[in-house]
Amino acid sequence: MIKARPFDYPYDGNLNPAATALIVIDMQRDFLSTDGYFARQGYDPAPLRAIIPVLDRLIAVCRQAGIRIIHTRQGYREDLADMTPYEKWRRKRSGIEGTNVLLRGHPGFEIVPEIDVRSEDIIVDKTCNGAFTYTDFEHVLRAQGITHLLFSGCTTDVCVHTTLREACDRNFQCLTIADACASGDQYAHEAALHMVTVENGIFGALSDSAAVIEAIGKLPAR
Amino acid sequence: MIKARPFDYPYDGNLNPAATALIVIDMQRDFLSTDGYFARQGYDPAPLRAIIPVLDRLIAVCRQAGIRIIHTRQGYREDLADMTPYEKWRRKRSGIEGTNVLLRGHPGFEIVPEIDVRSEDIIVDKTCNGAFTYTDFEHVLRAQGITHLLFSGCTTDVCVHTTLREACDRNFQCLTIADACASGDQYAHEAALHMVTVENGIFGALSDSAAVIEAIGKLPAR
Amino acid sequence: MIKARPFDYPYDGNLNPAATALIVIDMQRDFLSTDGYFARQGYDPAPLRAIIPVLDRLIAVCRQAGIRIIHTRQGYREDLADMTPYEKWRRKRSGIEGTNVLLRGHPGFEIVPEIDVRSEDIIVDKTCNGAFTYTDFEHVLRAQGITHLLFSGCTTDVCVHTTLREACDRNFQCLTIADACASGDQYAHEAALHMVTVENGIFGALSDSAAVIEAIGKLPAR
Amino acid sequence: MIKARPFDYPYDGNLNPAATALIVIDMQRDFLSTDGYFARQGYDPAPLRAIIPVLDRLIAVCRQAGIRIIHTRQGYREDLADMTPYEKWRRKRSGIEGTNVLLRGHPGFEIVPEIDVRSEDIIVDKTCNGAFTYTDFEHVLRAQGITHLLFSGCTTDVCVHTTLREACDRNFQCLTIADACASGDQYAHEAALHMVTVENGIFGALSDSAAVIEAIGKLPAR
Repeated sequence: MIKARPFDYPYDGNLNPAATALIVIDMQRDFLSTDGYFARQGYDPAPLRAIIPVLDRLIAVCRQAGIRIIHTRQGYREDLADMTPYEKWRRKRSGIEGTNVLLRGHPGFEIVPEIDVRSEDIIVDKTCNGAFTYTDFEHVLRAQGITHLLFSGCTTDVCVHTTLREACDRNFQCLTIADACASGDQYAHEAALHMVTVENGIFGALSDSAAVIEAIGKLPAR
Repeated sequence: MIKARPFDYPYDGNLNPAATALIVIDMQRDFLSTDGYFARQGYDPAPLRAIIPVLDRLIAVCRQAGIRIIHTRQGYREDLADMTPYEKWRRKRSGIEGTNVLLRGHPGFEIVPEIDVRSEDIIVDKTCNGAFTYTDFEHVLRAQGITHLLFSGCTTDVCVHTTLREACDRNFQCLTIADACASGDQYAHEAALHMVTVENGIFGALSDSAAVIEAIGKLPAR
Repeated sequence: MIKARPFDYPYDGNLNPAATALIVIDMQRDFLSTDGYFARQGYDPAPLRAIIPVLDRLIAVCRQAGIRIIHTRQGYREDLADMTPYEKWRRKRSGIEGTNVLLRGHPGFEIVPEIDVRSEDIIVDKTCNGAFTYTDFEHVLRAQGITHLLFSGCTTDVCVHTTLREACDRNFQCLTIADACASGDQYAHEAALHMVTVENGIFGALSDSAAVIEAIGKLPAR
Repeated sequence: MIKARPFDYPYDGNLNPAATALIVIDMQRDFLSTDGYFARQGYDPAPLRAIIPVLDRLIAVCRQAGIRIIHTRQGYREDLADMTPYEKWRRKRSGIEGTNVLLRGHPGFEIVPEIDVRSEDIIVDKTCNGAFTYTDFEHVLRAQGITHLLFSGCTTDVCVHTTLREACDRNFQCLTIADACASGDQYAHEAALHMVTVENGIFGALSDSAAVIEAIGKLPAR
């Protein structure tokens, strides 16, 4: 059982590593670098970099307990075949037209090397903010019997929250780990965390890395 | 063209009534009444009631221009066949176990009579927060050739925002009408509106009813 | 274990009534009547009527064992809001333009009275041939913990097969009950049953009502 | 306009190359080779190889007219993360357990070199029989404004037909090119083509490569 608000997680006390995954959203160079998409939208990527050690502690304890690590990556097809005229217009407006920013197959699309990605992890590539839309994310979760999701990564208010909302609507049991999520917009980050708890936990429960590590650390090593 | 932030809507200036719909989210008795689900979660439904006149002005001007009105309603099957044990637990925790709150076919599920619903409108019933998930909403939009969505209703931070995020991921052109949305949690409401505009309009554009009515009022009556 | 081809069902021998549903596809008046959609396409609805007693025997034995009965119904919104210009053109070509055939809320949309529908059953209304598309079918199945589907109804080659294919792609365990399915096109019916078994059971297993009733009849009454 | 049964295609006479794609399903080594998945299920891959020249003629004429070519490939993640215990059981039963057959990243997963794949083409990788399920296929089609699909590839009765059914349910306008599709099971192949035409074209129209090439050849080169 993980201490959380507005109720402990999971609600029925059954913390089963085989049915749980740690979701690490979009910790890619293009978001965390000083000349990536995110920086060019006027945000400081420093808050995103700040969660890297938290994520690595979470990843380590989850691995030990046999909880699957699933990373997502955001990016368009290299030939822009999945991009609409509107998205091309926004890309131009962001000053990244003609660059490789957020294009698959380019270095910026890769997860930053400080995150401990292993071959046994699952990587889901997406174009949308939500990892469930137009991907095999749900297919993989169902195939693995995963029903419980622990959310981390960036940005809290955009890709984390969209994926969290999709997961709740599909009846996955969700926990958001506050200090393992980040955004360049501190107000939006804090508000997104608050929103998890409205209506007595409309998007599941909210906790922090210390509570998650404490609870998972007590599970027997796989 | 509708004045909006961070850019006017639609981005290409092509405001086509036949391709546009006004989405009115969940203006149901169970959310707006003083003994409904929402009130029992500890929220004051007064802010939700406050947007009713705004919505009716928007509905009137949209009808005149030939913009389709689509209402959504949230609720479970009467026999709870679409409800998980977790949702039943939350229902009990909210003090509405054994009641008809948010059950289809009951009076509380209906849209409040002050909202001008007509037989020519489309009503989409959903169980999820997002109107695209497990419904025919996208099917109807595509069949009608609707590509542009104007968002209103309640609550801003939950069902409006989840549906807005789903719509953006599916490449619909979205405008959120700030004063036509409401939530019982004022902080969450304001933050949700702010989130529309992050990353230079990650969830489309944000406007208000005055700007929408002015722009649509200039369109020729159908 | 149900005797089936090319392997017995379920493959692991675990026939669990609580995780199983009998799917009864589209046994509606508009398909089975002599002046419905189907008859107007030039087909004899007699083969469809012929499976009614088989279905009722299956329904009875499944009910006794605690296997959920899920009926689907095919039909458009009464105002045709979910119908494209192409579908309206096909409707005209079929000679049913301006009629109520296959419109929700009309008598022809109802399941024929000979089929034993009870209030404890689940009914899923769909516009598509596949019951998973633009409906809450998957949502209900997942909420109920149903992972095993027994297919029956009409027509074998169209709505049964499309839904069966969707179910297989979503990793449900599927059994098609040959003599509980029907089509007005006998060649298409037989070929559709054959297709279940190609590639060593690409769409699951194929059995008949006698084998299903025998195996389920041996389960303890709920 | 392409001569077809039971009606010419497209039904409204508007053959627009920019809104049309040629879908080439699963022409991969693992299906066409003599020691691939398909051969190990007991089928002769010769009928699949026989359509290669037909496909190349179609691809050439479509390219010239500016019709987009979209190839699909079937295969599991290399680590089997998207495979259920049931699918592993079927894999064992087919005698391909422990092989690389139908695994992404292996040579057998590639499209056969005789098919003219170019960098301007779109490739959609799928695990399901249906290309719309758990992929970005629909996302790409909508982003490109593609509404009309010409179906070819293998096998007619499994992946072609499942994808065709999904496309029809999503209101794409579909044409199946009979002699550009193949299956190792001739009875299933012929029946699948017949099924397109039941109920006056329930899955669109059916034509052949000669008629398609004649009609598209008359379009102005892009």
